[in-house]
Amino acid sequence: MASVYGKNFTVSIFGQSHSAAIGVVVDGLPAGFPVDLDRLQRFMDRRAPGQGPRTTSRKEADRVEVLSGLVGNVTCGAPLAMVIRNTNTRSQDYDNIRDVPRPGHADFTAHVKFRGHEDVSGGGHFSGRLTAPLCAAGGIFLQLLAKKGITVKAEILEIGGNREDPLGEIDRARMDLDSVGGLVGCTISGVPAGIGDPMFDGLENRIAQAVFGIPAVKGIDFGSGFDAARRRGSENNDPFYYDEEGRVRTRTNNAGGILGGISDGMDITFRAAFKPTPSIARPQDSISFSKGENAVLEVHGRHDPCIVLRAVPVVEAAAAMAVADAMGPALLSSGGPASAE
Amino acid sequence: MASVYGKNFTVSIFGQSHSAAIGVVVDGLPAGFPVDLDRLQRFMDRRAPGQGPRTTSRKEADRVEVLSGLVGNVTCGAPLAMVIRNTNTRSQDYDNIRDVPRPGHADFTAHVKFRGHEDVSGGGHFSGRLTAPLCAAGGIFLQLLAKKGITVKAEILEIGGNREDPLGEIDRARMDLDSVGGLVGCTISGVPAGIGDPMFDGLENRIAQAVFGIPAVKGIDFGSGFDAARRRGSENNDPFYYDEEGRVRTRTNNAGGILGGISDGMDITFRAAFKPTPSIARPQDSISFSKGENAVLEVHGRHDPCIVLRAVPVVEAAAAMAVADAMGPALLSSGGPASAE
Amino acid sequence: MASVYGKNFTVSIFGQSHSAAIGVVVDGLPAGFPVDLDRLQRFMDRRAPGQGPRTTSRKEADRVEVLSGLVGNVTCGAPLAMVIRNTNTRSQDYDNIRDVPRPGHADFTAHVKFRGHEDVSGGGHFSGRLTAPLCAAGGIFLQLLAKKGITVKAEILEIGGNREDPLGEIDRARMDLDSVGGLVGCTISGVPAGIGDPMFDGLENRIAQAVFGIPAVKGIDFGSGFDAARRRGSENNDPFYYDEEGRVRTRTNNAGGILGGISDGMDITFRAAFKPTPSIARPQDSISFSKGENAVLEVHGRHDPCIVLRAVPVVEAAAAMAVADAMGPALLSSGGPASAE
Amino acid sequence: MASVYGKNFTVSIFGQSHSAAIGVVVDGLPAGFPVDLDRLQRFMDRRAPGQGPRTTSRKEADRVEVLSGLVGNVTCGAPLAMVIRNTNTRSQDYDNIRDVPRPGHADFTAHVKFRGHEDVSGGGHFSGRLTAPLCAAGGIFLQLLAKKGITVKAEILEIGGNREDPLGEIDRARMDLDSVGGLVGCTISGVPAGIGDPMFDGLENRIAQAVFGIPAVKGIDFGSGFDAARRRGSENNDPFYYDEEGRVRTRTNNAGGILGGISDGMDITFRAAFKPTPSIARPQDSISFSKGENAVLEVHGRHDPCIVLRAVPVVEAAAAMAVADAMGPALLSSGGPASAE
Repeated sequence: MASVYGKNFTVSIFGQSHSAAIGVVVDGLPAGFPVDLDRLQRFMDRRAPGQGPRTTSRKEADRVEVLSGLVGNVTCGAPLAMVIRNTNTRSQDYDNIRDVPRPGHADFTAHVKFRGHEDVSGGGHFSGRLTAPLCAAGGIFLQLLAKKGITVKAEILEIGGNREDPLGEIDRARMDLDSVGGLVGCTISGVPAGIGDPMFDGLENRIAQAVFGIPAVKGIDFGSGFDAARRRGSENNDPFYYDEEGRVRTRTNNAGGILGGISDGMDITFRAAFKPTPSIARPQDSISFSKGENAVLEVHGRHDPCIVLRAVPVVEAAAAMAVADAMGPALLSSGGPASAE
Repeated sequence: MASVYGKNFTVSIFGQSHSAAIGVVVDGLPAGFPVDLDRLQRFMDRRAPGQGPRTTSRKEADRVEVLSGLVGNVTCGAPLAMVIRNTNTRSQDYDNIRDVPRPGHADFTAHVKFRGHEDVSGGGHFSGRLTAPLCAAGGIFLQLLAKKGITVKAEILEIGGNREDPLGEIDRARMDLDSVGGLVGCTISGVPAGIGDPMFDGLENRIAQAVFGIPAVKGIDFGSGFDAARRRGSENNDPFYYDEEGRVRTRTNNAGGILGGISDGMDITFRAAFKPTPSIARPQDSISFSKGENAVLEVHGRHDPCIVLRAVPVVEAAAAMAVADAMGPALLSSGGPASAE
Repeated sequence: MASVYGKNFTVSIFGQSHSAAIGVVVDGLPAGFPVDLDRLQRFMDRRAPGQGPRTTSRKEADRVEVLSGLVGNVTCGAPLAMVIRNTNTRSQDYDNIRDVPRPGHADFTAHVKFRGHEDVSGGGHFSGRLTAPLCAAGGIFLQLLAKKGITVKAEILEIGGNREDPLGEIDRARMDLDSVGGLVGCTISGVPAGIGDPMFDGLENRIAQAVFGIPAVKGIDFGSGFDAARRRGSENNDPFYYDEEGRVRTRTNNAGGILGGISDGMDITFRAAFKPTPSIARPQDSISFSKGENAVLEVHGRHDPCIVLRAVPVVEAAAAMAVADAMGPALLSSGGPASAE
Repeated sequence: MASVYGKNFTVSIFGQSHSAAIGVVVDGLPAGFPVDLDRLQRFMDRRAPGQGPRTTSRKEADRVEVLSGLVGNVTCGAPLAMVIRNTNTRSQDYDNIRDVPRPGHADFTAHVKFRGHEDVSGGGHFSGRLTAPLCAAGGIFLQLLAKKGITVKAEILEIGGNREDPLGEIDRARMDLDSVGGLVGCTISGVPAGIGDPMFDGLENRIAQAVFGIPAVKGIDFGSGFDAARRRGSENNDPFYYDEEGRVRTRTNNAGGILGGISDGMDITFRAAFKPTPSIARPQDSISFSKGENAVLEVHGRHDPCIVLRAVPVVEAAAAMAVADAMGPALLSSGGPASAE
C-alpha cells in the first residue's frame, strides 16, 4: 500500500504526471451530503499551475470530473470517484532523466524500487501534480467539515527564511536559476474536544501521515513544536480556565490544540517545512545509469521556483482529510435522520 | 483503533500506568529468528525509571515476560506476546487530578473522550510508562534489523536549547521545581535503497506516525528538515556520485536518506522535538470539573524533570518499528530457507 | 470502508449501475509486469451482458480504459486505475423501486443505511454491474498468477439443483417469468504450499471475504465442505505421501488444499452458492415507503434469469484477487531483478 | 497479519497450545461499559475442556485474567488485555508429530510456512485452544451487544448428518476410535436494519472472515444458503410487509437477515460446517520429514472426538465479534453521555 489514506474513510489516489488522467476514489462518505462542485473547482484552482511567473508554465485546467458517488450533486453512499485529465504533457522533456536522476527528486529511489520500470515523465507518480487529486478529496472533506463549523486555513509563514518579503525571495531565486523553500502554517478551528485517539492514531500522527504525503515536506511540528524543546514546563504548559460560557479553554495554546493525541477544543495549529523545489535550471552533479559513471545533469521541463506558493491549499486538503478521518463517526452524523421506517 | 501500529506487522500495545500489567503483541514476525532476551532486557533497562536524581523515583524493574511466540528463544511464527508487571504504583497520588486536570497532560482530553471513565492513575494509558512495551517491541525489531546490518542510534542533541551542557539544564530545571524539553536526533544506518512507498506510506510518514506515538513529541523533521525551508535548491539538493565500490551515493545528505518517501541508501536521519515534562512541582492554574470553576493544581506523584533522558531508547524503538514495518517482506527474508520438502 | 479489498494490495472499486463510469484502482502491483490488455478484454467479455436470451438485454461493451499505472503496457509501480463507461442506461425503468423496494434486493437495506439518498437506478452500487471492475482487477491478478504457474478455473456445477441440464433450467425459469439459482465450483491450481496465514487471514477467510463481495452469493465451502460435517475423521482426513518427485502430496483432497488456513500444495477448491436473481417479472408483495402501506411490485428493467451464467468469470476474478493478496510478497518477486546499482 | 481481526475494533489473539499463556487484546472498546466478569467466566466455561467423556481429558480452568483496560470492572477506553494461563500441558505427547505431520491438521502447512520453526506442541498457534481467547473477546462483545438488545445464539444442528441423535453419533465415533463432524446454526436477533457495508465489508463477508478463524470450519452459508442455489426466485425472495407496529418485515427469511451485505432487521442466520476432528486414535498414513519417506502415524495426546460440542460458544463469540465490528460507531454510542464540560 502506498497512495491510500484513512481508517474511517479510504482515500485512494492514482495517476502519474503524464498518464491519461489522475484521480481519487473516496470510500466511506456519508450519504445525503450535497457537494458544491463549483466551490470544489474554485478550491482546485488555487492549486492549479500556470498562474503567473512564479509558477510553472505548464497549463492544466485541473477540471474535476465526477465519475460516480453522486446522485445529482448529493452523495449517495457509494464511493466518490473523481478524475482530472492530463492535457499539457511534454514527455520528451524527460528523456534525459531516465538515465540521469535529478538530485533531490525521487528519480533514483523510484528507479531502485521499481527496477527501472518507473514512469519517469514529469516525475510519474511522485510528481507534485498528484496533489491535484489530493485537493479534490480534501476539497470534499473541507466542505464536510465546514458543515460542522470546522474551518482549515493555511498560509505562507516564510520563504527562504524571509517573513517580511516572502514573494520577493521567490523572484530572486528564479532570477538566479535557483529555487527556494518555505514554511506553511495551518490552523484548524472548530474541532470539538475529544477527537483523536491515543498513541499511534492521535491527531499529530494522522496529520503527519497526511502532510508528509505532500512532496517536498521534510518537517512538521504542532503548537510551539520545535520551540517547545527549548522551553521549560512552566512556560510551555497551557493553563486551563472556564470561559464566560462555561467552556474549558486554555490561556495559551502551546499544545497546538492537541494533548495526548486528542483535541482539547482550542485551535489545532501546525507548521509544515517545504524544501526548495529540487528542479533547478543550473547544471548539477549526478550519475548516468547506462554509463555507470558520474554525469552532469541539466534539467529541462517546467517547474515552480518555489512549491510553497501552490502548496497552501494542498496543506489545507491534507489537514482536512486527516481531521475528517479522525472524526469519522462524529462527522458521519452530519447527515439527516434515517427516513426508512 | 489507536494503540496499534503497522501494515506488514501488527504491534498492539496495552496497559495503563497502574494496571496489573502493560505489554505488547507483535503479529507477523518471521519464524526462526533467535531472540536475545538478555540483550532485550538491557535495552529495556536504558529506559527504565529510578536511575538517579534526574529521573523519576518510581522504581520498576521493567522485566519482560514472554507469554507466547517463542519456542526456546526462537520465534515460531505465532504472535509474540510480552508483558511487564506494574509493581510500584501509588494511585493515591493521583486522587486530585481526577477532578483537576494537569495542564499539558492528556487528563482533560481523556476525560472528554472517555466521558469520565478514563483511568487517571499515573496518566493511565497516556502515561510515558507505555513506552516500556513500545521498547519491548522495538527491541525485537532492532535485533531483526541488526541481522540485516541495520543499526538505529539516537542521541540527545540539546536540552532547553543547550547543546554544550544538556544535563546541567536538567539539574537547573529540577532545582527550580520546573521541567525542560529537548531534541533527540536519530540515525538509521544500513537501510538499502528502495525501502518505503509513495505518498502516504513513505518512510517519513511511517516514522512520523510511530514517533508521534511517544508522549511529549511535538515535532519531527528529516535531514535538513526545517532548515531546508530556509534554503535554496542549489544548496539543499544532494548531488549523486558513484563511490569506489560502484554504489550510488550522495555527497551531502540533506534529504536525510529519503527521497519521495523511499530510502536512497544513505543514513536516514531525523530529529524529534520533546516538550518539557508537563508535571511540575509548582502550583498551576487549572479547573475543577466537580465545582465547575477555576482551580489551582499542585501536582504530586513522581516525575522526570526531563523526559528526554529516558526517551533516547524509545526513539530508537519507534524508529526501528517503523523501518522494520516498511521493509516488511524484505526483512522477512532474513530467516533461513524452507526445509519442508 | 466497504468496496475496498486487500492487505498486500488495495483494490478500491467504485461506480453505480447508471453512473458515468464504474472502475477500480489497484494499489501495490509490482512494477515491470507486462499486462496483456487484449487478454484482459477477452476475460471481461466473458462477463459482459447482452450475450443471448439467457442474459439481460442491456448491452454494454465493458471496454476497459486504463487511466494510469502503465507505461506502454507494463506496470510502473504506480496505482493501476481502470474505468468502464456506462452507456446503455435506462434509469426511468427504476422510478417505481425508489418507493417500492424489490424483495431479495438491497433496495430496502440501502434505503435504511443511506437514509433515502441511495442511488436506486439499476441497483446503484449494489448492482451486479459492479462485478465488471472486479473482473478488471481480477483479470490483472489472473495474469500475475499465471506467470507463477497458477491457474484459476471456475465452472457451473448445477443450476436449480440440476447437474445434467443446467442451462435447460434457466430456459424453464425464464419461460415461467421466474429466475433460478446455482452452484459455481472453482479450482485454483499451482499455489505452492505455505501460502496463507493463521486464524483470520487464512486462505478460506480471504477467499470468503472476496467471494461474498459478489452479489447473490449466500454460501461458500472448501474441499468436502458441508459434506465434511457429515463424515468421520477416518474418512475425511487426507493421508500424506511423497510422490515420485519427492513432493509431499495428499491421496485425497477433502481439505480443498487448505489446512490451518494455509495452502498444502494441492488444488484449492471451493463452491459458491448463488441465490436466484431477485428480479423476476412476476408481481411480488412489497411495501410503499411513501404510503407507509403494503404494495405490489412489478419489476421492469432488464435482468438475467440466472446470474450464475455470467458469474463464472467473476468467481475466478474474486478468487484470483484473494490468492494474489495472500501471496503478496511471494507474488511480487515475479518481477525482474533490480537494475539500480 | 493473521491473528488480528476488525476494522472498528482491533482484536489481536496470541498464544500457543503449550505456551505460558494465551490471550487477547481488544483495542477500541467504548469507555464506561461495565463488564460482568462472572458472566464472562461462565461463557468461557461453556467452551472449557475436560467436561466429560465426549471432550478431551485435558483439564484447563480457562480462568480469564484481566491485565488492563478496566478501572474496577468498567472499561476505561484503554485496550482491554486478557490472558489465560496454560497449565495442563504434556508436550512430550507431541514429540512424534514434529517429524510426522498429522493428516487433516496444520502440522504440515505450518512446517512449510514457518520453515521448521513452528511450535508443534498441541498444534501450537493452530490449536483449537486458541478459541479460548476468541471466546474471551467474544464474551465481551456479547455483553456489549446485549446492552443494545442484540442476542447471539448458536446450537448444534446435526452431528455426522444425524439431527435426531447427534450426541449418540459422537459416542459411536469415539467407540470406533474415530471422530465426526457436524453443523452449527447461529441466530443473531435484534440487529437493527442498516448495519453492514457494500461489497467486501458486508455482514456475510465479516462474519465469514471471523467464523473461518475457528479451526475445522470448512463452510458457511446464510439464510437459505446452499438451498437457495437450488431454488427459483419466486420461492426464495422474501416479500416485505409492514407489521402492526409499522416496522418493515419480511414474511420469510431466506436472506438470513442480510440483503446486499446489510442487515434488514430480521434475524441474521447462518450455518457453519465443521469437519471431523483430524486427530483420531487409528493409525494413519503420513510422511517422515527426517527420513524423506512415507510413514505411519499414531496420534497420542488428548482430543475431542467431535469439536462441535465445544464449538457452540465459539461460533457465538466469532459472530458477536463480527457484528460488533460491523456496528462500530452505532455500538459505541451505547456509553453514557459526555460529562466533560
